[in-house]
Amino acid sequence: PQQTEDAFPASQQIVVLSESLNATNVQIQSLQEQYHDLERTNRLLVAEVLSLQKMVRAQSQASNELISH
Amino acid sequence: PQQTEDAFPASQQIVVLSESLNATNVQIQSLQEQYHDLERTNRLLVAEVLSLQKMVRAQSQASNELISH
Amino acid sequence: PQQTEDAFPASQQIVVLSESLNATNVQIQSLQEQYHDLERTNRLLVAEVLSLQKMVRAQSQASNELISH
Repeated sequence: PQQTEDAFPASQQIVVLSESLNATNVQIQSLQEQYHDLERTNRLLVAEVLSLQKMVRAQSQASNELISH
Repeated sequence: PQQTEDAFPASQQIVVLSESLNATNVQIQSLQEQYHDLERTNRLLVAEVLSLQKMVRAQSQASNELISH
Repeated sequence: PQQTEDAFPASQQIVVLSESLNATNVQIQSLQEQYHDLERTNRLLVAEVLSLQKMVRAQSQASNELISH
């Protein structure tokens, strides 16, 4: 059992690893939240672009009618 | 070697850590997939916005020509 | 202390876990960078969509004035 009597024993290494993993999980949580914000903005953009397409097509049609008269 | 004879020995702590890390990796995999979906939507949005810009500029030019005649 | 004398002792398991966690952190770093790229594109898209909305509204108003004369 030399390993557990090392200057840096297994138990301490496990504590360090456990803390590192916690920090990693905090980062993932933050990424998940950032992702959801981006997803929300993206959904708004899709709605705005669809609405713009409708407006532009309606204007295009109106212009064509105006020209053909 | 008291540590390995604890109520919660190193070997068990390692199993717990290993399972936690697996769960973390599953979360990252899911985030990666969500990211790729968002990237795909974003690319479609860029294409739609560029197409809208062309249409709006063409309409703007057509209007100006209509007014100047 | 049978565990530390196993074919796959705690110290080696800790090394493997530590390397896995490092690989996980590299993946998170990469996801974070991909996220920032996507956020930048998204901000540009928001600006372009706002600018398109202004142009389309101005054109719509101009068309209405043209028709009413």
